[in-house]
Amino acid sequence: MSRLEGACIVGQSGGPTSVINASAYGVIKAALDDPAITRVYGAYHGIRGVLDDQLLIMDEEDPKELALLPYTPSSALGSCRYKMKKPEEDETDYRRILEIFKKYQVRYFFYIGGNDSMDTCAKVSRYLAKVGYECRVMGVPKTIDNDLFGTDHCPGYASAAKYIATTFMEVYLDAHVYDTGTVTIVECMGRHAGWLTAACALAGTKGCAPDLIYLPERDFDMNQFLQEVDALYRKNGYCIVAVSEGIHYADGSFVSEAKTAATDGFGHAQLGGLAAVLANAVKEKTGAKTRGIELSLLQRCAAHVASGTDIAESMAARKRAVEETLAGTTGKMVGFVCDRTNGYRCQLQLFDLEQVANYEKKMPPEMINEAGNGVTQAFIDYCAPLVVGESALPREDGLPRFCRLKKVFAK
Amino acid sequence: MSRLEGACIVGQSGGPTSVINASAYGVIKAALDDPAITRVYGAYHGIRGVLDDQLLIMDEEDPKELALLPYTPSSALGSCRYKMKKPEEDETDYRRILEIFKKYQVRYFFYIGGNDSMDTCAKVSRYLAKVGYECRVMGVPKTIDNDLFGTDHCPGYASAAKYIATTFMEVYLDAHVYDTGTVTIVECMGRHAGWLTAACALAGTKGCAPDLIYLPERDFDMNQFLQEVDALYRKNGYCIVAVSEGIHYADGSFVSEAKTAATDGFGHAQLGGLAAVLANAVKEKTGAKTRGIELSLLQRCAAHVASGTDIAESMAARKRAVEETLAGTTGKMVGFVCDRTNGYRCQLQLFDLEQVANYEKKMPPEMINEAGNGVTQAFIDYCAPLVVGESALPREDGLPRFCRLKKVFAK
Repeated sequence: MSRLEGACIVGQSGGPTSVINASAYGVIKAALDDPAITRVYGAYHGIRGVLDDQLLIMDEEDPKELALLPYTPSSALGSCRYKMKKPEEDETDYRRILEIFKKYQVRYFFYIGGNDSMDTCAKVSRYLAKVGYECRVMGVPKTIDNDLFGTDHCPGYASAAKYIATTFMEVYLDAHVYDTGTVTIVECMGRHAGWLTAACALAGTKGCAPDLIYLPERDFDMNQFLQEVDALYRKNGYCIVAVSEGIHYADGSFVSEAKTAATDGFGHAQLGGLAAVLANAVKEKTGAKTRGIELSLLQRCAAHVASGTDIAESMAARKRAVEETLAGTTGKMVGFVCDRTNGYRCQLQLFDLEQVANYEKKMPPEMINEAGNGVTQAFIDYCAPLVVGESALPREDGLPRFCRLKKVFAK
Repeated sequence: MSRLEGACIVGQSGGPTSVINASAYGVIKAALDDPAITRVYGAYHGIRGVLDDQLLIMDEEDPKELALLPYTPSSALGSCRYKMKKPEEDETDYRRILEIFKKYQVRYFFYIGGNDSMDTCAKVSRYLAKVGYECRVMGVPKTIDNDLFGTDHCPGYASAAKYIATTFMEVYLDAHVYDTGTVTIVECMGRHAGWLTAACALAGTKGCAPDLIYLPERDFDMNQFLQEVDALYRKNGYCIVAVSEGIHYADGSFVSEAKTAATDGFGHAQLGGLAAVLANAVKEKTGAKTRGIELSLLQRCAAHVASGTDIAESMAARKRAVEETLAGTTGKMVGFVCDRTNGYRCQLQLFDLEQVANYEKKMPPEMINEAGNGVTQAFIDYCAPLVVGESALPREDGLPRFCRLKKVFAK
């Protein structure tokens, strides 16, 4: 297929990860290097930047600063949580996108994000095809939640898993230091999938195993939880627990629900404070000294302990995304297919955007133990190779030297 | 003075730090290497290990594992929070310590800890001198709180400061990612001194400055706080704040006090949950989306991002402690005297235990801005050199390879 000449837009959306900028860099660098792409724009705050005609000219940035992007957390181009209506319901946003694409002669659109972003991507792709505007749309996955369909794992997950396992090891050692016992509850992100929380189990391969792990894939029973914690606390004098923010009772209501009621732009309940709720319940039941620790934002932005594997894979996926779109592919997402039988091998593969969008991949039953309070070796085997390798993040005065963009806006 | 022959005991006490094991290693290694020291014991859970006759034989440990101690967080020998009565009031504990010291022919006692531990150390030293038992007692400071008298800074502080500044940078980038504004509150440890919270200001030297910093050295005014946050949020769309867990109103009551009432073994109020309290107050006042992040234990155990300067200084101080005690010194603490006029130079110096104990060093007025909501350049100049350098922590499968002791108990 012909190499379509025109500008490209790169956008980032949804919750940031430690390596979402590695993805952006992979695309931006490949696009800047390709003669068919006349100009590389960054969508300021994702699709909102397109709708509001706020585009950053990436060609104006210092290549040396751009080269720091893979080691810089958060979304350097800005993110958004904006859910577009279906074009069948309301075409306003799509007409505006078409207008902007025409204005800047955009023929390539790369959108980096999770489930909701792949949904946005699929809708834009479908609309542009319908109206006959030639533009190649590629979804570039990222989400620490690791819940995208098709791909073996999602860029961003490995770094979050590495941070969580490392931190859990450190907290484990700290929580076992006194002669008086304690119960420690570590809360990880994950509304509907337990991938992040399960990563605490990696600490077990280094002698710092969580005693109990509760995941949203199984219904939570407060009485059973309190009994399990109490039994271990009485036996060992200590108990350290990993929980997913999204654990819920059999009726579907979140355990943390009583605490907060606000919702984000997509109608998801905003969770948080679960660790404190559970620590309190344990204290009342057992009389133990308890501590609830919420890993909060830290687990998605701790670039200083990002996974080298994650960074390398993210950059490779993005480069491939550009090559594929230049060769004519559209409406796809670049993901991974991995083989762990003899060491770890990871290959890139294209997945249909329409199939990926809006389907949340949960942990399969064989990765969760029968009692529903821990993971199996199958999960360890799956996750362990992902956290290997360190980030090449440069330091300045002992602190990270993150990328600083000039942010020059297109007129 | 003669080189006294006998065994030595090393103990760790109080809240752990990322580098308290670097201190332990400095002492253990120097003691193991010295022919005058016949045996090196680790007090299991600090002074409790002495009282309970639970001593670990350090000579039995694999030197290769011991060499990992400097990079391992928490207290490898176990810690305690046990406050001994004054010998004038009750001699029971002191008689027991004397009995154990005689039993194991202990002539050297090194106690690593913060304020309360230096107090324990001073009492033991005084008692042994009074009863005429020849034993050299040396305090080895560590505390992330940085509140020990005399010494320029405390081992452990620099690593916590580095973690806090690094994490603050990452949270800053994450908190500024969306097109919709937010107010973020980051809570750091520090009951009475603001040293840890102030470290957030280092992030400002890398473009990620906290908008406001509230320290326990100044009385907190909720209305003023809400006004300051609101003004910045309205002006910039964002506001990111660092607060000390120990901020208090003019009457001395902790801002977080309503939340928890438990106290630890020393009668200190147990704090926590402040970030959530403030985030809530801001939300009510401004309507902004808010997030409260408590750095919790992570700031004292994040060995994976420990300061190289901290580790090197901790080991040097401990080595010096052993040399001094072998040469006859007793009743002292090894601290630092630093010169920052032409680069950073740090020298070791001895301080009187009696003077160090039970005095909390707060931040001096010249390091806090006039409005009481930030720090001055004097603090930046003080703190910046401490966080330089990285830990040589080895990794295994992408995760930290921390020290694993055999823990062989003396009969």
